[in-house]
Amino acid sequence: MTDPRLAELIRLIPALKLSVEAGDLEHHGRDWTRRWTPAPLAVAWPASIDEVQGVVRWASAHGVGIVPSGGRTGLSGGAVAAQGELVLSLDRMNRVLGFDPIDRTLTVEPGIALEAVQNAAREHALLYPVNFAARGSCQIGGNIATNAGGIRVIRYGNTRQWVAGLKVVTGTGELLDLNRGLVKNASGYDLRHLVIGSEGTLGIVVEATLTLTSPPPPSQVMLLAVPAMDALMKVFAEARHRLALEAFEFFTERALHHVLAHGAQRPFAEDHPFYVVTEFDAGDEKAEAEALDFFEFCLGEGWVTDGVIASSEAQAASLWRLREGITESLAPHKPYKNDVSVRISAVPAFMEEMHALLSAEYPAFDVVWFGHIGDGNLHINVLKPAELDNGVFVEQCEHVTSLLVETLARHGGSISAEHGIGLVKKPWLGSVRSEAEIALMRGIKAVWDPNGIMNPGKLL
Amino acid sequence: MTDPRLAELIRLIPALKLSVEAGDLEHHGRDWTRRWTPAPLAVAWPASIDEVQGVVRWASAHGVGIVPSGGRTGLSGGAVAAQGELVLSLDRMNRVLGFDPIDRTLTVEPGIALEAVQNAAREHALLYPVNFAARGSCQIGGNIATNAGGIRVIRYGNTRQWVAGLKVVTGTGELLDLNRGLVKNASGYDLRHLVIGSEGTLGIVVEATLTLTSPPPPSQVMLLAVPAMDALMKVFAEARHRLALEAFEFFTERALHHVLAHGAQRPFAEDHPFYVVTEFDAGDEKAEAEALDFFEFCLGEGWVTDGVIASSEAQAASLWRLREGITESLAPHKPYKNDVSVRISAVPAFMEEMHALLSAEYPAFDVVWFGHIGDGNLHINVLKPAELDNGVFVEQCEHVTSLLVETLARHGGSISAEHGIGLVKKPWLGSVRSEAEIALMRGIKAVWDPNGIMNPGKLL
Repeated sequence: MTDPRLAELIRLIPALKLSVEAGDLEHHGRDWTRRWTPAPLAVAWPASIDEVQGVVRWASAHGVGIVPSGGRTGLSGGAVAAQGELVLSLDRMNRVLGFDPIDRTLTVEPGIALEAVQNAAREHALLYPVNFAARGSCQIGGNIATNAGGIRVIRYGNTRQWVAGLKVVTGTGELLDLNRGLVKNASGYDLRHLVIGSEGTLGIVVEATLTLTSPPPPSQVMLLAVPAMDALMKVFAEARHRLALEAFEFFTERALHHVLAHGAQRPFAEDHPFYVVTEFDAGDEKAEAEALDFFEFCLGEGWVTDGVIASSEAQAASLWRLREGITESLAPHKPYKNDVSVRISAVPAFMEEMHALLSAEYPAFDVVWFGHIGDGNLHINVLKPAELDNGVFVEQCEHVTSLLVETLARHGGSISAEHGIGLVKKPWLGSVRSEAEIALMRGIKAVWDPNGIMNPGKLL
Repeated sequence: MTDPRLAELIRLIPALKLSVEAGDLEHHGRDWTRRWTPAPLAVAWPASIDEVQGVVRWASAHGVGIVPSGGRTGLSGGAVAAQGELVLSLDRMNRVLGFDPIDRTLTVEPGIALEAVQNAAREHALLYPVNFAARGSCQIGGNIATNAGGIRVIRYGNTRQWVAGLKVVTGTGELLDLNRGLVKNASGYDLRHLVIGSEGTLGIVVEATLTLTSPPPPSQVMLLAVPAMDALMKVFAEARHRLALEAFEFFTERALHHVLAHGAQRPFAEDHPFYVVTEFDAGDEKAEAEALDFFEFCLGEGWVTDGVIASSEAQAASLWRLREGITESLAPHKPYKNDVSVRISAVPAFMEEMHALLSAEYPAFDVVWFGHIGDGNLHINVLKPAELDNGVFVEQCEHVTSLLVETLARHGGSISAEHGIGLVKKPWLGSVRSEAEIALMRGIKAVWDPNGIMNPGKLL
């Protein structure tokens, strides 16, 4: 550690776990994006809030940028460290600190995996309802920093809704203890909600108190084959009207193709342009009959051409794998990811326009659609042809993003539904937030982080 | 209008409805608190967002404070204009602007009454679930500015949870269009959530897009007589475990006394120290049987000594009136209002300590307890003895508040659960928010409102 700044850091916090090993820098300097070359100054693994505060004060004094680092499963480059920043990994702060059966809250350190939070809730016969495919490796601190959504938003909302208290270290090293688990607290600006979704640019989440809820009633999982794009939202409207939905996801035959290539089983004898996987409450025979009625109605309308209801937990899991396996199955193809949202009511018109745009602009590319259509959130992944240079590919995709942004603006949509802005979407922040909003964000950032050390260059 | 600043305002916005009549100044210069003498410069009733922006730009140029004014049912002095401010009343901006059946959103102007929002939702067979006694006169803009809670928080959360989009005019007259009704939008700081609960100190809400939900299943209302304070939370825990709660409220015999004096009927033959009114899903015989089991269990444990289940909607309404009529019945006694919260788990210990404190400090005063005990939110109203001077009374009460604040701090509570800080709780803001948090709030306020014209002197 010949860097004099690191020597000073070691002097200040002798117990701090710190590395400048090439492998650690490489590994911890990137997230699931693969566009930037990791080049952090070092990686630090504080073990306590005190150590986090010490590192931040050191960084503030020396003008060193800090990249807070969780499971690094992000898709927007929010956890990339390519500019000599210090990576502050929360890996060692991963404990459950407490559970209160009356408050129904779980207090955790930020480095705990989402799945570990879900499991801890289950041990107390309760549910932490945020859920998505990266649950095994993503960390709750990162979930909070991006206000993670996922596959149950339609029932339970985003991460924001489940955070009853937050401890946060600001850019000056101050420790804030926000809301402290209160259900009701009308005492000025709710800074907790400002931190949620701020992508590490205001401070570092060092502890969270999460609200748990009762487990849902027994549910059923249904997979539907849908013959045409314009039928998707009709099926959704009907499902929402008739069933108590927990999830409503769609994907295309192209998406299924990649999941099958990754080892899954084709669910129907034939190909279909679109698929829906939906989960809904089905605690009794009446609910099951309603599900069947719903299916038959959609079949009769021609909105659905085939379907299957899972008859066991194992089958339900295998139907879910068709949807949840998509991201992983696409990863080897270095996909360019669009994560867009519009109001639910705007989905049909937006999808048609977007489909026309992408067909015209990407005639030769493999374009894979899927997503949380019941929340107005579409994921469109453009796969890199193997022979194409990555730089050229990204450039071509970004050109199309510029066109896409115009379509989105016409429909009042967002260039980032749930992945965040990070580095990847930064050129288009102005398409979803006005100049006045961005100026306010910059002003707020300057108040929280006057030396600009918190995840510099991300988002703003 | 001899004030040259007002002459200039008229010149700038000739169509603006404006008054300096003594009756208007008196009426619009105060909220439900009665501690300050109204003394606004004038009252303006803009009819459009353009006019609001014009007024704010004028105020910013002339350094005139603006007090945004809704139904003025607030209990913290947040809408008081006693320092020559311009009252900006939203009374004329009270229309429903749109409804979308797919998004299930209602877009409204800020001056619409909460009850009118509820009714508009009902016309579409949907529910706007925030509810409390002032529904007929409070306005949605004020609900948003205070993140209003009320009697259904236990099921539906606060106002925050139902705001999908906000248009806001900042202290510089900029119009922000925040989140635009999107379910998912991870594009930087969620300024919408910063505005919600900011008590008019950052900007003026000029339009809101509200999320609606499905109406709840049929429900039952039950009134319980509870013999002792320490049984209240036991009854709550049992009710939450066995029933699908929509509301769980408590009040004391002293509270009932005032409601009865106001014209209600005593519900049981005898007096009881405490009462609980609870509402829960009861769509079928099974649910009704569970409610009866719950009641009999509590009776057997000695936690409950009497009870009644409403057998008609009229009876349900009359049971609810016992709880909802409290605030109105106390108003003539000029109550000093404490609106405190602790974590739900801390309620029993906190109540005991608080009861001991108040018994010692207010031996001669009539102290009335009620509130949303299932959210950890207690309202403690101290009634002014008729013969006591109001100034002396408030001084004595504020002395006790200082003691109360220490008890609250020990239990991690808040001096303002849902009324807001306004003017009334400002001396104790530092008891619930740290110096670092208050400094951040001031910094944020300066970014949004650099000339300090938005509801000056409130909250901060």
